[in-house]
Amino acid sequence: MGAIKYELIKECKQSGARLGKLHTPHGIIETPIFMPVGTQATVKTMTPEELKDIEAQIILSNTYHLYMRPGHELIKRAGGLHKFMHWDGPILTDSGGFQVFSLSDLRNITEEGVTFKSHLDGSKHFISPELAIEIQNALGSDIIMAFDECTPYPATYEYAEKSLERTIRWAKRCKDAHNNTDNQALFGIIQGGMYKELREKSVKEMVELDFPGYSIGGLSVGEPKDIMYEMLECTAPLLPKDKPRYLMGVGSPDALLEGVIRGIDMFDCVLQTRIARNGTALTSEGKVVVRNATYQEDFTPLDPNCECYVCKNYTRAYLRHLVKANEMLGARLLSYHNLYFSLELMKNIRIAIENDSLLDFKSEFFSKYGY
Amino acid sequence: MGAIKYELIKECKQSGARLGKLHTPHGIIETPIFMPVGTQATVKTMTPEELKDIEAQIILSNTYHLYMRPGHELIKRAGGLHKFMHWDGPILTDSGGFQVFSLSDLRNITEEGVTFKSHLDGSKHFISPELAIEIQNALGSDIIMAFDECTPYPATYEYAEKSLERTIRWAKRCKDAHNNTDNQALFGIIQGGMYKELREKSVKEMVELDFPGYSIGGLSVGEPKDIMYEMLECTAPLLPKDKPRYLMGVGSPDALLEGVIRGIDMFDCVLQTRIARNGTALTSEGKVVVRNATYQEDFTPLDPNCECYVCKNYTRAYLRHLVKANEMLGARLLSYHNLYFSLELMKNIRIAIENDSLLDFKSEFFSKYGY
Repeated sequence: MGAIKYELIKECKQSGARLGKLHTPHGIIETPIFMPVGTQATVKTMTPEELKDIEAQIILSNTYHLYMRPGHELIKRAGGLHKFMHWDGPILTDSGGFQVFSLSDLRNITEEGVTFKSHLDGSKHFISPELAIEIQNALGSDIIMAFDECTPYPATYEYAEKSLERTIRWAKRCKDAHNNTDNQALFGIIQGGMYKELREKSVKEMVELDFPGYSIGGLSVGEPKDIMYEMLECTAPLLPKDKPRYLMGVGSPDALLEGVIRGIDMFDCVLQTRIARNGTALTSEGKVVVRNATYQEDFTPLDPNCECYVCKNYTRAYLRHLVKANEMLGARLLSYHNLYFSLELMKNIRIAIENDSLLDFKSEFFSKYGY
Repeated sequence: MGAIKYELIKECKQSGARLGKLHTPHGIIETPIFMPVGTQATVKTMTPEELKDIEAQIILSNTYHLYMRPGHELIKRAGGLHKFMHWDGPILTDSGGFQVFSLSDLRNITEEGVTFKSHLDGSKHFISPELAIEIQNALGSDIIMAFDECTPYPATYEYAEKSLERTIRWAKRCKDAHNNTDNQALFGIIQGGMYKELREKSVKEMVELDFPGYSIGGLSVGEPKDIMYEMLECTAPLLPKDKPRYLMGVGSPDALLEGVIRGIDMFDCVLQTRIARNGTALTSEGKVVVRNATYQEDFTPLDPNCECYVCKNYTRAYLRHLVKANEMLGARLLSYHNLYFSLELMKNIRIAIENDSLLDFKSEFFSKYGY
C-alpha cells in the first residue's frame, strides 16, 4: 500500500490537460492544483484557517529551512509538522536540494552529498540523500522529494548529463532510505537541463525506479519561458499516466495555464506572497502595483471580478496606504488576495478541463489579463 | 442633542469603580473599556473582523499620523475613517497633540498653534486647535479630542501652569471650531503636570467648558506609577459623574486595574501590539518573553488560562519559531493574544464591579500575575 493514489478523471479533449484526484493521508486534492508555499512552517502572513477559507488543498514547506530552524528533531518532538504549524491538510516538502544550491555559500558537491554553509549563521552542514529523507520522515509531510542536484541554467550538455545521472543515483539512495512509505509518498525529480535527450533519459531512468509521483525540476531557473514549455512538452508525455506530475517552483498565472495544458498536475511558487509584500496584486486584468501613486485615490477594489474577502471589503486606496505605511495588514491582505486569485484560477482551469474547453478559457483569460 | 451619552450603571461598593454604558453613533460601549490602538488606520496586524472576534468595542486612531499619511482630505473623500478602514464600530481619535510633541523635530509652540517637521519626510507643518478639529471632523470619528499641550515630565510648576492654561484656551477654540456635535463628541483634556493644585485647576476650568467627556492627559509620560495614581486620585473625583473619563495612553494590566479603581472608564495603549512585535505576551501568569530560549521546546499554550484562538491552537515553541524566523504570523498571533488578554481583563473587571468585588479580583489577579 502506498501513501497516495492518483486518480485520472479525464483529459480535456481540447487541450489534453488532466483532471484528477490525489488521495493523500491528510485528504483528497483535486488536481491540477496550486500549492501555497510555507517556507518556514507558515504560509507568510496567513493562518491555516485563512488557507482553508481560500480553499488551499495542500501546502508546501521547505526541508532546508526547517532543518536549519527550528530543526527537524524539534518538529518531530512537537508531533510532526502538521501539528507544529496547526495545519491538518496535506503537506508536500521539497528535499532541500534547491535551497542548498541557491541559498548557501561555499557548497561542495561530492557523490556522498553536499557540504555547505548556513545562510543564517555560516555554520557548516552536510546533507546527503539519506539525511534529506530522514529530515522529511521526521517532518511527516504527506509527499516528500528525493534529494536532487538542481542543474543551473545555463549548463553544458556534459554538466547537465553528469548532474542528472547523480540525481538518479541519489534518488535510488533516497528510495532505500525512506522507511515510512505507507504515510509519505516519495517523488523522483526529473532533471536534464535544457536538453531534450537528457530530459528523456532522466524520465526513463527515474520511471524505472517506480516512484509514486514525479517532479519536474531544474525549470524556471532563468531560461526563457518558451524553452521551459519545450522541456515540458518532451517530458510530461513520457511520464506514467497514473502518477501525479509536479512542476517545481512555477506559479505565475500564464505558466500555470501553460503547464496544465502540457499535462502538469501540481505547482508551487513563492511569487504570490512575495509580490504581495512588495505591494503588488495579481488580478484578472493583470498585475496591479498598488503601491503606485496612480491608486492613491482609487476607491475601487483590487480586482473588480474577484469575490475574495479583500476585494469585498477594501479599496486600492486603503491597501496602498497600508503598503506605503509599512503596515503588516497590507502584506496580509495582498497575500490573501494573490493566493485566492491563484487558487480560483486553478478551480476555473479544472472546470474548463471538465468542459473540454481549456484552450478557449486560456485565450479568454489571456486577453483580459493582457498577454 | 449630543453625539454620545454616558450611562452610569453602578459603582462598585468595594472599590468605587464605575460600571457604565457609553452610547455612540456607532454602537454602545460597555465601560470600563480598553481601546486597541490603530495608529495608521489599522490596529497593527489585525483585521476588523478579528477585532470583533476578540470583542473590541471601540478602537483609537491617530490624528497626527493620518494627517501626515494618507491625509484627512483623502480619508474624507473615501467616506470617512470608518469606511476607509472597514471598521463599523466606534472610533476615538486623539488630537495629534501628543504626537506633535513626541515624534516631530524642531517644534515651535506659539499661542496660535504648533509648527513642526514631519517625522516622515522633514516637511514643515502647522497644527492649530482649529486644524486639529478640522482633521477630526474630516475623519468622522465618534469621539474626538481637543488639541492640547502634553506637559512633559519633569516640568516646573510654572511651565506646567502655563501649559495647562494654554490647553484651556485651546480647548475653547476647539469647541468653537467643532461643527459636527451631533455625530462627534469632543472631549476636553486635563493637564497640570504632577501638581495636585494644577490638576484641580485644570479640571475646574475644563468642566466649566462643559464637554461631553474628559480625558486625563500628561500621565504615563515617565513619572513613577505612584505619582500617576496620586494624580488620578486628585482628578477623577472632581469630574462630573455623568460624563465618561478617559486616561490617555495607559494600558498595562496593573494600570488598567488601578485606573478603574480610581474611577476611569476608558483606556488605550500601544503596549499590547508593540510588545507582540518584540515577541512578548501578556498572560495571566505575567509576561512571557516567548523569544527566549527557555521556550524552545515548550509545547504548551502561551497562557494555560486563556481561551483565545492562539492559545487554543499554537504552542510557545511554534510562536517562538515564528518570532525567531521574523515571520509576520508571529507578530499577528501575539498581537491577537495580547489584545484578547486585555479585553478579557476588562470584561472580568466589569463583572467584578457588578459583583462589588473589584478589590478581591485585583488581589487575586495580582498574585497570579506576579506583582
